[in-house]
Amino acid sequence: MSNDLKLDLPSHLPFIDYERDFDFPVGDVFRAHKDPALLKQWLGPRGLHMEVEHYDFRTGGSYRYIHTDPAGTPYTFSGIFHTVRENESVIQTFEFGGYPDVVSIEFLTFQDLGEGRCRLVGHSVYPSIEARDGMAQSGMEGGMSEGYERLEELLAAQRVS
Amino acid sequence: MSNDLKLDLPSHLPFIDYERDFDFPVGDVFRAHKDPALLKQWLGPRGLHMEVEHYDFRTGGSYRYIHTDPAGTPYTFSGIFHTVRENESVIQTFEFGGYPDVVSIEFLTFQDLGEGRCRLVGHSVYPSIEARDGMAQSGMEGGMSEGYERLEELLAAQRVS
Repeated sequence: MSNDLKLDLPSHLPFIDYERDFDFPVGDVFRAHKDPALLKQWLGPRGLHMEVEHYDFRTGGSYRYIHTDPAGTPYTFSGIFHTVRENESVIQTFEFGGYPDVVSIEFLTFQDLGEGRCRLVGHSVYPSIEARDGMAQSGMEGGMSEGYERLEELLAAQRVS
Repeated sequence: MSNDLKLDLPSHLPFIDYERDFDFPVGDVFRAHKDPALLKQWLGPRGLHMEVEHYDFRTGGSYRYIHTDPAGTPYTFSGIFHTVRENESVIQTFEFGGYPDVVSIEFLTFQDLGEGRCRLVGHSVYPSIEARDGMAQSGMEGGMSEGYERLEELLAAQRVS
């Protein structure tokens, strides 16, 4: 599929770069990041339950959500929105509770490709290469791929309904 | 002076690492970062006027301040506090208005050296090496050195008074 997640982990820089195209307009994909009622239906791999503790999606707001796996183990994620620019870009911090104080900063851009399509471009910056590698080895790529597939399914279902 | 600012810019990583010792306890140096009435008396190089627009120094809070040079040119800085741990550490974002969306994340640690001394350790992480170099070439080192000298003078004056 041409819309597959493209992931790049440069070996000598503490970054995770990615791109994902969608056959949906920017407005739809942005809304699925903005509205926690939608977000909890797609973020992360299949088979986890997601609970949004709070999600104040605006410049200066903060968020915290918990993924729980089938064995009942919780994984908490939290951060702060440095910039939210409607239908354009988000800059936010990101911390996994299992690695306290290992905080990354995430730059997300929503690009209009025309003809009702869009591209999500992400640039994640970690405080060390080791921290980036730890995140990459946690099953992140599979989780992101599945998450974006679920996002696509969610938007397709909304379009039909 | 043994308390001089030590600055390290690794050539292949987008970091600015620094250390600065103070002949003052952690509590004093932390308070000078926490209280905007103190902060505005030392942050940045001599000869600039600093106005704090807001400074909500707590986990989830945000800040914005403006330095104005003698010619009247304003320089705006803003960001968000991801974590504030009293007398221990601060994790915050940092953006210079002149380079919008070039946001760094700053890890500050306050270490007790005993005998009423402390060490401030900083790790700043930029979204690219070019962004880090741009910040480093903006007169940052001189500004930081002078700022910490002013902080020392401020705390010495408070101790005397």
